[in-house]
Amino acid sequence: MASQVNPPRGMRDMLPAEQRRRAHVADVIRGAFSDHGFEEIETPVVELAERLHAGLGGDNEKLAFGIQRRGLTVDDLRGAESPADLNDLGLRFDLTVPLARYYATNRAELPTVFRSIQIAPVWRAERPQAGRYRQFVQCDIDIVGEPGIQAELELVAATGDALQRLGLADAFVRVNDRRILHAMLEAAGVADGARDGALITIDKLDKIGRNGVATELDGHGIDGAAVLAQIDAVAAGDWSNLPDEATEAIRTLLAVDAADLGVRLELDPSLVRGMGYYTGVIMEIAHPAVPYSIGGGGRYDGMVGRFLGTDVPAAGISFGFERLIDLVDLSADADEEVVGILHDRDVTPAQLVAAKRRIVASGRAVRVAKRTKNVARVLDALAASGATHVLTLRADADPAGALDVQPVRPADPTT
Amino acid sequence: MASQVNPPRGMRDMLPAEQRRRAHVADVIRGAFSDHGFEEIETPVVELAERLHAGLGGDNEKLAFGIQRRGLTVDDLRGAESPADLNDLGLRFDLTVPLARYYATNRAELPTVFRSIQIAPVWRAERPQAGRYRQFVQCDIDIVGEPGIQAELELVAATGDALQRLGLADAFVRVNDRRILHAMLEAAGVADGARDGALITIDKLDKIGRNGVATELDGHGIDGAAVLAQIDAVAAGDWSNLPDEATEAIRTLLAVDAADLGVRLELDPSLVRGMGYYTGVIMEIAHPAVPYSIGGGGRYDGMVGRFLGTDVPAAGISFGFERLIDLVDLSADADEEVVGILHDRDVTPAQLVAAKRRIVASGRAVRVAKRTKNVARVLDALAASGATHVLTLRADADPAGALDVQPVRPADPTT
Repeated sequence: MASQVNPPRGMRDMLPAEQRRRAHVADVIRGAFSDHGFEEIETPVVELAERLHAGLGGDNEKLAFGIQRRGLTVDDLRGAESPADLNDLGLRFDLTVPLARYYATNRAELPTVFRSIQIAPVWRAERPQAGRYRQFVQCDIDIVGEPGIQAELELVAATGDALQRLGLADAFVRVNDRRILHAMLEAAGVADGARDGALITIDKLDKIGRNGVATELDGHGIDGAAVLAQIDAVAAGDWSNLPDEATEAIRTLLAVDAADLGVRLELDPSLVRGMGYYTGVIMEIAHPAVPYSIGGGGRYDGMVGRFLGTDVPAAGISFGFERLIDLVDLSADADEEVVGILHDRDVTPAQLVAAKRRIVASGRAVRVAKRTKNVARVLDALAASGATHVLTLRADADPAGALDVQPVRPADPTT
Repeated sequence: MASQVNPPRGMRDMLPAEQRRRAHVADVIRGAFSDHGFEEIETPVVELAERLHAGLGGDNEKLAFGIQRRGLTVDDLRGAESPADLNDLGLRFDLTVPLARYYATNRAELPTVFRSIQIAPVWRAERPQAGRYRQFVQCDIDIVGEPGIQAELELVAATGDALQRLGLADAFVRVNDRRILHAMLEAAGVADGARDGALITIDKLDKIGRNGVATELDGHGIDGAAVLAQIDAVAAGDWSNLPDEATEAIRTLLAVDAADLGVRLELDPSLVRGMGYYTGVIMEIAHPAVPYSIGGGGRYDGMVGRFLGTDVPAAGISFGFERLIDLVDLSADADEEVVGILHDRDVTPAQLVAAKRRIVASGRAVRVAKRTKNVARVLDALAASGATHVLTLRADADPAGALDVQPVRPADPTT
């Protein structure tokens, strides 16, 4: 039992300082979204297996953790045709499938245009690797029930405000539209049935470069050079090959004052976004400091209504919380006064609890540490746990006397 | 697909208003605990199956949801000796087993006396019934590494402050000590080996009454009348049959000024608390408005160190969040100004997003609704979503003009 005891593979414990930081960043994001009229919801972390595997999750469905049906017998194991037959539930692998299920369940009690916030963990049984976790947090905002570009604009404005509040003013949003992608492919002579495959190849541009994309398209019998030429033309501002209905949404988006959105938009006609369910505008949040995207989303009109059996217009943006947390430089509660009580060994528990109570009642938070010979080390530990001040408590102190609270370290004379 | 779509059995979706309330109550509790020097941590929601089933969870172990090992084959199903053999992970059924595992994993990075907060969901595959959920939130504080009564006092003081902040000033804490229970049983002539069984019977006092307890004890060959007489004597203040070492902790607790604890303590010598792992003081939080306890805890010195292979002193209190939430009457953000934008149909998305931005930039939150013929109904919906004020936005409004923000309803002339 005394051997190494770790959390499950690919999952993490949060130490207090990290947890404080994560909670603070989540609060900042939640505050921005909430100010913009989005409302937080919560769903159970598990969903019925048949819902998780309804084809809405793309490749992520394969990564779902399955939960075994209760009350199984050995005969059930012998009779099952596959391991999945033994599972009736699973851990959610994203927040979009649960939102679709939630909307189907609760539509009668939700506003006609429903703006949701979800900041919550998801689970994927990925092969563990640096920076990939099997439990990680996603921050999603979605607008369900609004078919117009107003939804995308509200999503971007809320995102822009959140990025500003996180101190990520250099972030920007790459935008494109699935309808523009299809129009470019049509103009390049790509047949209707070959377009989804072509998009998968274009999506690899970052990884395999222009030559790689051209070669792979050629290999599928598609004129790669013609496709790239279309993308280049649109990037250069030549939209003459694109029908108005393909560009209308993007034109409206790009015409809005960036000051009203809180973030700069940049058309990237090669942007595809992996998931097959997008139907219109697609977006990806980028930041010059990192080579990967820190979020993304778009319009996916066919999906949220799946469990209702009817189409419901919807658009959303998802922040990658784990990627954001590495990028932001926010310290929580910097203004709060936290008093570390450094008490002698002979202070009674009742004296200690009375002093604690007095400090908390004065609006300050408390930490407690017993005095040892190495006082400097105890003070270091108090400071590490957030103490900004210190109160030395002796057994003979007057219980009603003034509390002699001092800064935890002598002030640096240079500041 | 259009049939009833529900969350998994025994689990709940949180609508926005309920979520707001829950988050607010959790924040109040977290704030009190944090002010008292406790630090929030987080562990993954899943643990290795062997840890969940290490005998630390009592009857709750049987209620754990099991997660199937990835990559199983049909041959694995045929060869397994029991369904549990196919699971390598499980959802946690409490926050104490994960705390023990967390402490074993991270001890080197934690303070010598570690005060933890956990506010997080747990899962139990209970037979669904009114008020019992399969996913529910627990709020635990624990002090690990402090063997003295100071730990229990700090736990009670933090709990008292949380109850005060929740407006539950009438709550009180029933206390007892496992050592007092053992001393009473010894005084009643109950043999050492029969005492755990006797405690299980005494624990049923609320359900089966004094006669029921006496009869059941008699049936086990124990003098039920003698046991009840001991409990009655201690309740009446006659501690003459109890050795000092059994009563020292409780004497210290009861001697502390209730004003310093923020909550009244009441000795209940019949209090047992179900879990077998308690070793000293045990506590139960009660409120006159409800017949059930709203939390409980105690000292459990043998347990947290289990995964380390060494004993570590520990004590904790767990709030039943789902029971608290029904009891408290707190509305979130009562002071916050929330402006509902009631916009004409021909207002452009760009106009709307600009108005939104101006309101948020002024420190107020926004809700959005399209004007329909039935304006009263739209205003009702805005108010229900938290709007305290309303701004009517027309397409011909001056984008830089003053924002005419009005209270969402004409002020009641009587107030």
